[in-house]
Amino acid sequence: MKANAETISLKHVTITDDFWKGKIELAKDVIIPYQWDALNDNIPGAAPSHAIENFRIAAGLTDDECKGMVFQDSDLAKWLEAASYSLIYNYDPELEKTVDGVIDLIGKAQQKDGYLNTYFTVKEPEKRWQDVCHGHELYCAGHMIEAAVAFYEATKKDSLLKIVIKYVDYIMTVIGSDEGKLKTYPGHPELELALVKLYEVTGEEKYFDLMVYFIEERGKQPSVFLKESSLGLANNDKWFNLDYHQAHVSLDEQDTAEGHAVRAVYLYAGMADLVKYTNSEKWKTRLEILWENVVENRMYITGGIGSQGHGERFTLDYDLPNNVAYAETCASIGLVFWAQRMLQIEPKQTYGDVMEKALYNGVLSGMSLDGKKYFYVNPLEMVPEVADYRHDHQHVDSERVGWFGCACCPPNIARLLTSLGTYIYTQNEDTIYTHLYVGNQTSFHIKDQQVILTQKTNYPWSGKVSMSMQLERSDTFTLAFRQPVWSKNIKVMLNGTKVATDTVKNGYVYLSQQWHHQDEVTIEFDMTIHMVRSNPKVRENAGKIALQRGPVVYCLEEVDNGKDLHAVKINPDSQMTVMNSPSDLGSIPAIQGTGVKESTSPSELYMFDQKPDEDKIEWQAIPYCYWGNRGKGEMMVWLREIDRN
Amino acid sequence: MKANAETISLKHVTITDDFWKGKIELAKDVIIPYQWDALNDNIPGAAPSHAIENFRIAAGLTDDECKGMVFQDSDLAKWLEAASYSLIYNYDPELEKTVDGVIDLIGKAQQKDGYLNTYFTVKEPEKRWQDVCHGHELYCAGHMIEAAVAFYEATKKDSLLKIVIKYVDYIMTVIGSDEGKLKTYPGHPELELALVKLYEVTGEEKYFDLMVYFIEERGKQPSVFLKESSLGLANNDKWFNLDYHQAHVSLDEQDTAEGHAVRAVYLYAGMADLVKYTNSEKWKTRLEILWENVVENRMYITGGIGSQGHGERFTLDYDLPNNVAYAETCASIGLVFWAQRMLQIEPKQTYGDVMEKALYNGVLSGMSLDGKKYFYVNPLEMVPEVADYRHDHQHVDSERVGWFGCACCPPNIARLLTSLGTYIYTQNEDTIYTHLYVGNQTSFHIKDQQVILTQKTNYPWSGKVSMSMQLERSDTFTLAFRQPVWSKNIKVMLNGTKVATDTVKNGYVYLSQQWHHQDEVTIEFDMTIHMVRSNPKVRENAGKIALQRGPVVYCLEEVDNGKDLHAVKINPDSQMTVMNSPSDLGSIPAIQGTGVKESTSPSELYMFDQKPDEDKIEWQAIPYCYWGNRGKGEMMVWLREIDRN
Repeated sequence: MKANAETISLKHVTITDDFWKGKIELAKDVIIPYQWDALNDNIPGAAPSHAIENFRIAAGLTDDECKGMVFQDSDLAKWLEAASYSLIYNYDPELEKTVDGVIDLIGKAQQKDGYLNTYFTVKEPEKRWQDVCHGHELYCAGHMIEAAVAFYEATKKDSLLKIVIKYVDYIMTVIGSDEGKLKTYPGHPELELALVKLYEVTGEEKYFDLMVYFIEERGKQPSVFLKESSLGLANNDKWFNLDYHQAHVSLDEQDTAEGHAVRAVYLYAGMADLVKYTNSEKWKTRLEILWENVVENRMYITGGIGSQGHGERFTLDYDLPNNVAYAETCASIGLVFWAQRMLQIEPKQTYGDVMEKALYNGVLSGMSLDGKKYFYVNPLEMVPEVADYRHDHQHVDSERVGWFGCACCPPNIARLLTSLGTYIYTQNEDTIYTHLYVGNQTSFHIKDQQVILTQKTNYPWSGKVSMSMQLERSDTFTLAFRQPVWSKNIKVMLNGTKVATDTVKNGYVYLSQQWHHQDEVTIEFDMTIHMVRSNPKVRENAGKIALQRGPVVYCLEEVDNGKDLHAVKINPDSQMTVMNSPSDLGSIPAIQGTGVKESTSPSELYMFDQKPDEDKIEWQAIPYCYWGNRGKGEMMVWLREIDRN
Repeated sequence: MKANAETISLKHVTITDDFWKGKIELAKDVIIPYQWDALNDNIPGAAPSHAIENFRIAAGLTDDECKGMVFQDSDLAKWLEAASYSLIYNYDPELEKTVDGVIDLIGKAQQKDGYLNTYFTVKEPEKRWQDVCHGHELYCAGHMIEAAVAFYEATKKDSLLKIVIKYVDYIMTVIGSDEGKLKTYPGHPELELALVKLYEVTGEEKYFDLMVYFIEERGKQPSVFLKESSLGLANNDKWFNLDYHQAHVSLDEQDTAEGHAVRAVYLYAGMADLVKYTNSEKWKTRLEILWENVVENRMYITGGIGSQGHGERFTLDYDLPNNVAYAETCASIGLVFWAQRMLQIEPKQTYGDVMEKALYNGVLSGMSLDGKKYFYVNPLEMVPEVADYRHDHQHVDSERVGWFGCACCPPNIARLLTSLGTYIYTQNEDTIYTHLYVGNQTSFHIKDQQVILTQKTNYPWSGKVSMSMQLERSDTFTLAFRQPVWSKNIKVMLNGTKVATDTVKNGYVYLSQQWHHQDEVTIEFDMTIHMVRSNPKVRENAGKIALQRGPVVYCLEEVDNGKDLHAVKINPDSQMTVMNSPSDLGSIPAIQGTGVKESTSPSELYMFDQKPDEDKIEWQAIPYCYWGNRGKGEMMVWLREIDRN
C-alpha cells in the first residue's frame, strides 16, 4: 500500500529557528529528565508516579503493591517516545543507556504469552480483557508501540519493537473477527494509529488490518461495551455514556464529533491513516464530515476542542464558552495528529491552517515559557477569583501547575515538540509540500536525487520565509506550499524576481518548474492584524472580536491592562500597532491599540437609563500562548468592541 | 417589648385585585389540595412524600419504615401554615377538619419528653441532637412553630401551639448557655424567626431570648459544628463548609452574605426581628451591611439570590451569571421575609423596593400561570438545548416541573401567597405605611378608632393607585407610602386636588394631616419603560440592558422573537410601546420595540475583518415572571444593545 503523500523522517529534518529550537531544547533539557525523575518517584513533594516501580513489580524484581491509574504504563511509553525523538534530534549516549535499561525492564515485565500491562498483571489479573472499554489495555499497548517505533527509528534497535510485536500478536489471538475471539475495540482510541506505525515499520499488513477491524467494529449496536461489567455505572452519567467513547453508533454513521475530545481526535487520526493507505471514499467522506463539524462548529479560535470539563468532551455546535472551556492541551495535540494525517490524504488549506492554529495557540498555551509548568485546561477567559471560587470552574486552573502533578499533557507536549520535524513537510513522487513555516534544513529523496531544502524564517512573528535548495542536478518537480487563510495576499519571488502564484489548489500554491542548485524561493505573507469575529451562532462571542496576527491569536492580560477586562471595548477602526512585548516575555510582537473602558466605580448594582462613564484607553495585547507567564491575573481573548454600526 | 412598626394581622386584610386574588385562589384551590394529596402519597406517578406516613409511624399507628429526607416533617408544617392562612382568607370547614386531624396525629407522634421529629424518633433515635448542623431538628421545629402560630391566628385553637410549646420547652432543656447544655444553634436557620412569632403570640420572652442566644452563638470559633460527626465529610467540599451555614465567623463579624442563600436570608430575617424589638444598634448596623452586600453586590435584577447551583449559594460580589444562576424561588421568598422585617425596623425605600422586586419577578417566576408547575431555579437566560445538555447547567430546568416532585418551593409559595396581606402595610401609633400597591381593603386600629383603607389599583400594570378611607371621625395621623426607585415622578391628589409631596424621607412620602371620612388619595407613579444597566463590574451584563416597567422586569422569549436571542440588539433610543401581550398570557402589557438581529446564516466559524449582516427587527418583551408558560424555548433578560456612543 502506498500513501498519497508521506511525512519526512525525523532523521532528515534539523530545526534551526529560534522559536521552535528553544522549545525543543526545553523538552530535551527540562521535560525529559524531569519526567524521568517523576516516573521513578524521585521528585520531592510531587505525587509519586509509580510507573517504573509497577514495571519492577510486574517483572518480579520487587513485591510492592501496584499503584496508580489503570493507564499508568502509558506515561512511561510516552516518555520513551519523547526520549527516542530526542535521541534523533540530539544524540545522548547516557539517555540511550537509560532507555535500553527501561526496555530491558519492560521485557522482563512482559508475560510469557506476550501480555504486557502492569496493572492487570499485578493488581487485577482476573480482570484481563474483562473491561476493554475502561481498562485501557489497548490504549497502553498503542503508546508502547509508538515508543517502540520511535526508538527503532532513532537507534535501529528492535528491542522494544520485538516486545510490542509479541504483545500485539498475542492480542490478535484474543480480539478479532474470528469465532471465539472478543469482538471489541479500544475504549480509548490510540492503538489504531499506533498499529499503522507498526505496519509502516514492519510492513506486516495484519497490523493494518487489525486497525481497520477496530474502525469497522466501533459503535456497532448493541454495544459490546454494555456487556462489560463497569459501564453500567458510568452509564448513569449521560456525559460518560457510549458517545463518550465514540461508540454510540457505527462510526460510519457519526456526523458530529462527540464525547471525550482526546479520544475522538486520536480515533479520527487512525481513520485518516486508514484512508491514507486505502483511498476509501467511504471513510474519506466520513472524515470530511467530522472535520467540518469540529472545525466549523466545535473548535475554539485557539484550536482548543472540548468545551465542557465534565467528560472533557465535545458538547453542542457553537457551544464554546470561554471561561469554562476545557480545551485540553492533549486534545489540541490530537488535533495536530489528525490534521497531519489529513494532509497526507489530500493537501488542503484547512488541514494545514488548523494544525498551525492548534500548534501556535492551544498547544503552546499548555506550557509555561520555562517549560516547567503546564495547563491541562486552556480557557480563553480568566478571572482568577472566579476560577478559583466557582464550582463550575473547578476544572480550570488560574495558573499553570508543576507538570509532575499530572501525567498526560506534559509528555504529550514533549513528544510533539521533539517530533515537530515530521509536521513541516510531506512529499510524494514529484511534489514537496510545505505545511508549516519553521526554520529548518531537510533532505528529501525526490526524482532519484537528494534535495536539501533550507527554510529560513522568523515565523510566526514575521511573514517572510525563504526556501533555498541544494540540488545534485537540475530537475523538474513541484514545490507546493500552504497559503494560510489569514494571509489574503502573498508575494512569491524566485531568485529575487516576482513569480505568479496563479496555480493554487485547495489553498496550496504549486510551483512546478525546473529547479537549479541554489534556487531560492522567498514568500511573504500578509501579517495584517485581523479582527476576527465568530459566527453569530456562538453565544459567548456575540459582539466580540479576537485579534489575530499571522497564526497567532492574541489576548489581553491584567498585568498590561488592569482588572475588569470585560469593561474594555476595543476600537476596531483605529490604527493598531505592532510593538515589542514587555521585556519579561522576550522580544516578541505585542499589539497596541485604543479603545474605551467603562468606569467600574458606580456603587449601584442597577442603574436606570444611564450609561456607564467611559475613559479612553490604550491597550496592549500579547500572544495567547504567552499568557499566564507573569503571575496570576485576568486574561481575555474575545474582546468587546466599539460598535459603529 | 414593642416594635417600631407592626404588620397588620391577616384577619384585617382582604385582597381584592385581579392580579393577586387569582394567585391566592390558585393556592387555595390547587396548591393546598394537591400538596395534601402529595403528603399522603396519593399522587399517581409522583415520588411519595412519606411525610404523613412518617408521623403515623412515629405515633405508633403503623410500623412501616420511616422514609424521606431528614427534614421531611417541615413539608407538612409548611402545608399546615399555608392551610391556616387559607382558612383566614376563605374559611372552609372541611379544610379545618383535615387540619385538626393532622394536629391530632402530630400530637400522638410527639414523644413524652416533648421531642417532635419523626426521623430521629423512628429511624435514628440514637442520633437525636448528635448533628445539629445537618440534622434539621431545629429547622423542622421552626416550621412547626410557624404553622402553630398561623393555625392559632386562623382559628384561635391552641392545639398545635401546645404541642410546639412543649417541644420548645424541651429543646430549652437540651440547648442553651447553661452548664451542661449543648452550646449550638440551627444548621439551617428558621427557628430564629419562628421563635419570635412564638414570643409574639405567647408573650413569653424566654422564646425571644433563645433566638437571641442563637444569633449571638452563631459562628463562634472553634465551631461547635466541627465537633459533630458528619461535617468532617462535608468539610472536604469548600462550598459546603462552615460558611455554607453562615457559621464561619461570629455573625457580628460577617460583612458579606455567604453560603446557602435560603439559610442566609432566613437568618437575617431572624436578626431583623431581634433589632425590631431591641433596637440593637450593633445588629442593626450588621443588617445594614449585609443588606447592602446582598442588594448592591449579589442580587439579580429579578430579586434572585444565590448565583451558584452547587451549594445553592452566594459566591462573589458581582458574580451574577444569567444562564447558570441558581436564584432559588425559596431564596427570593426569604428575601421578602427579610425585607418585610427591615421595614418594621425602619421604613426605607430599598427594603420595600427589593421586597416588591423579588415578589413580582424572582418569586412569581417560580410558579406557572396555572399554579401547577414550578421552578426551583430561576435563570435569567435560557437556551433549552444548552440547559438540557451541559453538565454545568444540571441544576437548571428548561421547563417548570410538576410541583409534587420536590417539596420545598411550592408550599413556600403557597404560604407566601396566602399571607400576602401582611406584607402590604405596617403601622405604628400615628402612621400607616404602605409598602406594596395591591388592591385590598384593610382595617387599622389607630388613634382609638377603626380606619378602613381601601386600595384600588391595576398594579403592577398601571401606576395609578387610589386609597380611600372610612373613618369613624376625623382625626390627625399620617399616611406614608413608598415611592419606588423606578418612579422618578409621582403625582399625588387628595380628593381630586394635587398635593405637594415634599415630605419625603428615605423614599417614603409622608402625608400628615387631619383626615376625614371618605377622603381619597390617588397616586400616580411614572410607568416609563426603563433601560436598566448593570454596574460595569458585572461581567455577564457588560454591554447589555434589561427592560423594566414599574416593578416588572421583562424578557424576550423565543416564541415571540425566534431563536438565537443573543443575536438580537435592542435599539435603546427608539420608541418602545406598551401593547397587549399575546392572548395566551392574558391581557397584560408587553413591550414592543425595534432593533437588529445578526444573521446567523454564515457557515464559517471564524471570519476575518467582517461584520455579520444585520436585519432590522421588531421585538416583543413579556414580563419575566410570565416566561416559560408557552412551551420550551429560549429566554433572555439581559439584552445586547445597539451602542451609539
